[in-house]
Amino acid sequence: METEHLSQAFPLHQNMRLSKLHLWLKPYMLFISSFYRRIEFMSVDYDIAKVLARYVRAADRRDGTAMAELFLTEGKVTMFYNDGGTPQPLGELVGREAIANAVTKMMKPHPPRGWSHHTTHDAIINVEGDTATLDAQFIVYNVVGDLKPEGGWPVGASGAQGTVKPIESGYYRPTLKQVDGRWMIETLQIILDLPVAF
Amino acid sequence: METEHLSQAFPLHQNMRLSKLHLWLKPYMLFISSFYRRIEFMSVDYDIAKVLARYVRAADRRDGTAMAELFLTEGKVTMFYNDGGTPQPLGELVGREAIANAVTKMMKPHPPRGWSHHTTHDAIINVEGDTATLDAQFIVYNVVGDLKPEGGWPVGASGAQGTVKPIESGYYRPTLKQVDGRWMIETLQIILDLPVAF
Amino acid sequence: METEHLSQAFPLHQNMRLSKLHLWLKPYMLFISSFYRRIEFMSVDYDIAKVLARYVRAADRRDGTAMAELFLTEGKVTMFYNDGGTPQPLGELVGREAIANAVTKMMKPHPPRGWSHHTTHDAIINVEGDTATLDAQFIVYNVVGDLKPEGGWPVGASGAQGTVKPIESGYYRPTLKQVDGRWMIETLQIILDLPVAF
Repeated sequence: METEHLSQAFPLHQNMRLSKLHLWLKPYMLFISSFYRRIEFMSVDYDIAKVLARYVRAADRRDGTAMAELFLTEGKVTMFYNDGGTPQPLGELVGREAIANAVTKMMKPHPPRGWSHHTTHDAIINVEGDTATLDAQFIVYNVVGDLKPEGGWPVGASGAQGTVKPIESGYYRPTLKQVDGRWMIETLQIILDLPVAF
Repeated sequence: METEHLSQAFPLHQNMRLSKLHLWLKPYMLFISSFYRRIEFMSVDYDIAKVLARYVRAADRRDGTAMAELFLTEGKVTMFYNDGGTPQPLGELVGREAIANAVTKMMKPHPPRGWSHHTTHDAIINVEGDTATLDAQFIVYNVVGDLKPEGGWPVGASGAQGTVKPIESGYYRPTLKQVDGRWMIETLQIILDLPVAF
Repeated sequence: METEHLSQAFPLHQNMRLSKLHLWLKPYMLFISSFYRRIEFMSVDYDIAKVLARYVRAADRRDGTAMAELFLTEGKVTMFYNDGGTPQPLGELVGREAIANAVTKMMKPHPPRGWSHHTTHDAIINVEGDTATLDAQFIVYNVVGDLKPEGGWPVGASGAQGTVKPIESGYYRPTLKQVDGRWMIETLQIILDLPVAF
């Protein structure tokens, strides 16, 4: 199919048997292919998914600075309570400083022996040129280790001591923009499945 | 290595020093590279993973129509109880209509303030030409929000109010086929870890 | 930008209007593009993520042999208790045999009607030539099916019968090396959130 177009667009090849074109191009392609292997490591979908991977790391470290760097200067976060499919707006953060503050000061600090995991799943990514949308499910876990008794763990205890508890879930729906080769969050909708008490 | 082939296959270049070939090709490659950035966004592995991402969205919305569109017309779903490694067949759905019906009518509707998340993890994808296999772990969560008391949330309550509970797990093992550039599910084995009461 | 370079480097095209260059190259690119679709299926990031997908499968099957094959001969696993951000070393396994043994003999076997899911999330991958690092969150679930009563499931029971319980979490941080086109684990740091009783 493409080969027909080729012979029309490429007078140089008109006398060439099209069946031979592939052989003729092959060394070029091998060359270009080896070049691509070196410069095109990462797929765009991964580059975009990685932004969310950094987002959840920043959230779990309560690191507002690292979080803010993922957003455009004028970036925006809007939170919604899903309410069975008709999302109710809960609040909005505008700009990197507000976003950094919310992470550092408004998220509950981890308790002793505690940690959290914001995990995301099943990303649906759409890219158009330098903009992209992402839709990912999320589950948040709180993890709290047991305090080791002074006399040591009880007889028979083995493995991990403590609890891993899913406490929140929903969807992250960012829009992203590529700036100087780096994907940044322009807006982020967080859809929470559960109602929130303030 | 490739450059030797090039000089044989490409008489135009015979008098050129091979070491200069890279310089000569570079602008072409840059051009093609910028083109690829625009048309070859997504890797095949992502295109295939996205089918499963749409599958779980359809399941959580109990949207049989959206689910059926992911399957070939003659698509098939077979469910198994894993039974510690020797899977027992539980049932089979054949064709888009049966699949749509099962999602819309046989999956339990969400309770008030309820939602679910079918999440998938650690896909192993193998592609051969226009066919592919995928093996993913899955965990299903049921989410139910607490009913906000008439007098408002109790003093001291903060954060998400309700439960996020993992209720099912197993493996999704679809085979897929690329039709007109779109990956579709041909067969899907669902391996459930837990026994099922009907 | 690239097109200017092109006209300098490519005297053949000097008399061509640059604006037409794209049209002229397009059939070539379509051809090459169709070629790439066939040979460049998988992105490097996916190739690397797949190693971890095989790792968790081996863990859940308690399959030491399959696990060991993911590591370089001199591969090393180091476990840490995170202890709120200042990881304490717990132990080390050096070499494939030690790794295989630990999986086969030191991991608790599944109980009757039991299974586990080691799941990973939000990989951050960095590739430099033939080496790579990966940082993924993990959650481990234990799954135990209920024993079907002799008289059948109780009236009203429906759906999955048993429990899916998250019991461990943390981070996997492998370094990888590409050997003969295959990515292998060179070192693996496992950071556990919870303290461990031996």
